[in-house]
Amino acid sequence: MALRFYFCGPWVSGFLFSGALFLGCPAWADSPTEQGEKIALSGSGAALACVTCHGEKGEGMAAAGFPHLAGQGAGYLALQLQGFAQGERSNPIMEPIAKALNAKQIRAVSAYYSQLPAPFDIKALSAHLDTYPTKGSMGAWLANRGDWGNNIPACIQCHGPGGVGVGESFPAIVGLPPKYTREQLLAWKEKKRAAGPLTLMGDIAGRLSDTQITAVADYFASLPVSAQNHSAQVASSNATVRSKTAATASAPDFTPPDADAIPDDEFGKVVQRGQDIFLKTGTYAGQFVGNTMNCVNCHIDAGRRANASPLWAAYVLYPAYRTKNNHVNTLAERIQGCFQYSMNGAKPPADSDTIVALESYMYWLAQGAPTGVKLEGQGYKRLSEPTQKADYIRGQQVFQQECALCHGADGAGQSVSGNMVFPALWGDQSYNWGAGMHSIATAAAFIKANMPLGNGNTLSDQQAWDVAYYMNAQERPQDPRFNGSVEETQKKFHNAKTDLYGQIINGKVLGAQSTPAGGAIRVNGLNSEPSKD
Amino acid sequence: MALRFYFCGPWVSGFLFSGALFLGCPAWADSPTEQGEKIALSGSGAALACVTCHGEKGEGMAAAGFPHLAGQGAGYLALQLQGFAQGERSNPIMEPIAKALNAKQIRAVSAYYSQLPAPFDIKALSAHLDTYPTKGSMGAWLANRGDWGNNIPACIQCHGPGGVGVGESFPAIVGLPPKYTREQLLAWKEKKRAAGPLTLMGDIAGRLSDTQITAVADYFASLPVSAQNHSAQVASSNATVRSKTAATASAPDFTPPDADAIPDDEFGKVVQRGQDIFLKTGTYAGQFVGNTMNCVNCHIDAGRRANASPLWAAYVLYPAYRTKNNHVNTLAERIQGCFQYSMNGAKPPADSDTIVALESYMYWLAQGAPTGVKLEGQGYKRLSEPTQKADYIRGQQVFQQECALCHGADGAGQSVSGNMVFPALWGDQSYNWGAGMHSIATAAAFIKANMPLGNGNTLSDQQAWDVAYYMNAQERPQDPRFNGSVEETQKKFHNAKTDLYGQIINGKVLGAQSTPAGGAIRVNGLNSEPSKD
Repeated sequence: MALRFYFCGPWVSGFLFSGALFLGCPAWADSPTEQGEKIALSGSGAALACVTCHGEKGEGMAAAGFPHLAGQGAGYLALQLQGFAQGERSNPIMEPIAKALNAKQIRAVSAYYSQLPAPFDIKALSAHLDTYPTKGSMGAWLANRGDWGNNIPACIQCHGPGGVGVGESFPAIVGLPPKYTREQLLAWKEKKRAAGPLTLMGDIAGRLSDTQITAVADYFASLPVSAQNHSAQVASSNATVRSKTAATASAPDFTPPDADAIPDDEFGKVVQRGQDIFLKTGTYAGQFVGNTMNCVNCHIDAGRRANASPLWAAYVLYPAYRTKNNHVNTLAERIQGCFQYSMNGAKPPADSDTIVALESYMYWLAQGAPTGVKLEGQGYKRLSEPTQKADYIRGQQVFQQECALCHGADGAGQSVSGNMVFPALWGDQSYNWGAGMHSIATAAAFIKANMPLGNGNTLSDQQAWDVAYYMNAQERPQDPRFNGSVEETQKKFHNAKTDLYGQIINGKVLGAQSTPAGGAIRVNGLNSEPSKD
Repeated sequence: MALRFYFCGPWVSGFLFSGALFLGCPAWADSPTEQGEKIALSGSGAALACVTCHGEKGEGMAAAGFPHLAGQGAGYLALQLQGFAQGERSNPIMEPIAKALNAKQIRAVSAYYSQLPAPFDIKALSAHLDTYPTKGSMGAWLANRGDWGNNIPACIQCHGPGGVGVGESFPAIVGLPPKYTREQLLAWKEKKRAAGPLTLMGDIAGRLSDTQITAVADYFASLPVSAQNHSAQVASSNATVRSKTAATASAPDFTPPDADAIPDDEFGKVVQRGQDIFLKTGTYAGQFVGNTMNCVNCHIDAGRRANASPLWAAYVLYPAYRTKNNHVNTLAERIQGCFQYSMNGAKPPADSDTIVALESYMYWLAQGAPTGVKLEGQGYKRLSEPTQKADYIRGQQVFQQECALCHGADGAGQSVSGNMVFPALWGDQSYNWGAGMHSIATAAAFIKANMPLGNGNTLSDQQAWDVAYYMNAQERPQDPRFNGSVEETQKKFHNAKTDLYGQIINGKVLGAQSTPAGGAIRVNGLNSEPSKD
């Protein structure tokens, strides 16, 4: 056991300041981490030492199927111990241990493990942070793209790229023993483990086939978590999963090509590039992006999903006259609008590689779709007016219950290693006041059909309207068409009653505190287009 | 009769120089025009004076249905008199007159009338020179757009914009008494008048319905031929003709919207603009055009016709990888290629109004067409290899028999008042060495299906190959990709065996005498796009 020096942390200051003034730490005041370390290494009463099964550094024991604990969120770990103690999780070894620990001990040992370095090297996973590797493996596809035909989001959409975990609530799943992952997914599927926050994992696992469970468990065990264990990769299943457009309430009358059917030729390379840009926009087209958003945040399942503005339905509707700018927009100009508004960035030139690649990807998705025909599932399905007027307070409640887990209580989203996992819903990293999503009607329609991710159409219409109101009653980057006056800009561009720009909410005029439009364009993206753009 | 002074013309010089040297004209040597004038005004023997029926200035007599003669081509007039004399045309008044004139007299009176000013003011017809007016009238539609569903070219495609006549062989039809025009069309239709050069008028009239004949006769009589007779316009039929895609040997599996169904809204205005550019490219996008070609020259029936590179079939195939430039081309870049090569001009920027309008027109034509699907009728239907190797001499014979009437013996096409009517097939006003049409295979396919205009699929495959060879064995503007050496340019871009660039024909290396690529861009076009492009 290494000797460590701890500064007094906040866990003791509240107590201290309620009494007399101390200088330095009291000798008796072991930090929670120190207390946790003792439990981890030596146990406590009837509780065995954690290291017995989870390894000296919390790295787990792959052969036995024991998971790593090091680096997992303290909140997550505590929740698991409570779960074992209360019968929400079932495990003959863990149950008596968890029951033997009191609440304070649980917090302590969770805090201890959360501050240990995670047993994987983020650099070794770099390929999985920058791309969505899917080739030749059902597991890789599920992990990185999901199976939206069955309403299964990609694992990385919550657990982060490479499955490295996000924040307190979404544990790392990379490097877990495949036996462990498989058992957990089956437990959720068979309702032997509580469904967890927002019932997300229970719901999702319930939709996975046993073959998919094995494939995805093997996949995350196979990733190169460190330079050392590259050779220890587990062979992935070579069965591919062919992602088709998700079944939705109203079945679309068009199905794009299978997602893994991008042709292996020169044209296919450009389509693939378009898909890369679509999934990791800042990485592949960073010079045009001013926030942390990616195209796929609004266009679910890589632009394939009906009622989530699918690309195939958009493709066949351009060129079109748009009242937004009072002229006929080609597809190129429409895509430029996404960059300027939703990505709070800059327009890629109409003949840039970025536009060519995105147009090619859209065209490929639209194979066989009739030109000029509005297809079922196009855009976001409009919600009729709510029974009660959309309300900030009710919306806030919905947000806290249903959205904050992923998007954060402050709506700022969550990132891991610089990769945005959950998009910011407001603030300077979100879409700006010119984006279509700032309309309450548009946002409500999107939310209703698609949120919480993978559990679309579970909120009531009223909830969708309320939370859309709440979200769009927050400040965000300025409208790029801002003419120097919020009042004038409001009059010119924000007259709709579903548009809160320029309105006074909580005593502040929306738009008046906006950060400038066109944020800090990232120019250091991986493989970004050369500066000729 | 006005006194006129004539210089001696060439009709006498041959005679003079075969004898002794004369200074001045011999008093006895009436010019043919003078001889013709005498016949016109006073008759000759059994021949009545022409002025009796055709008016003092050859302006015709509308009430009686007698046509104007002034300004018509001498060759055309002579052919008509011969026709009356030989029974190819039937008319109780004209037959005895024509029979009373000898060959020399026929030439003389034809020469006289051809040099009189035509009884219409080209300025008064300006609207008909710059646009293809079609609204609200079957006659206007037939005159300006034809009825390609029945293989009927537009009248103006041979008789020139406004029907003002072209060259020696295509008479002015504007301002003719409607009774006369109707009778002639019916005579052709009922085979009471010889079918004429290349049997064009006989074939075309044979496809016109009686209603169409009346409509088009009324239309050309109704045009404002001078400031004076604006009020004398004949009311046009208001029945519209809805032009559908032409029936062809292999019926296409797609039909574009009716040609007169362009929507009357903001989007429709841009579609209309695209159609205008398509029909009169130099007029509406002159700054990008370096020759006298229009898009419609290669894409028959305003881009609607199957097997004439219809726009609807092209629209659904882009973006696409092209070996021509080894990358994926958007539709915008593909259109730019037409301007750079076929129009021997400059690329309109991808986001220019010109490209937006053309894309919108193409999109509108493709309404309902399946994205990414190669439709029947796409491009030019490939001809299989000819039985005999394509041959210059045989091709030249085909050209002289079938093509020279319209395109001229020198292949330079024919214009009227600065408006190209028959496109140049080679020379500095034709497509350049980079255009797709310079391939013998492509040209043969186009010619077979579409030439002579309105009588496609009447040449044999061998004739099409031979004449394509002849046409593409002529010099034309340089390939814009020219790298300073014909030999090197040939190696890099002209390897196909159906490509004669760099080959020695008639002792000259093709490409070596080319005018520079990108001709003289016209910037004075009517309504041309502002210089921001």
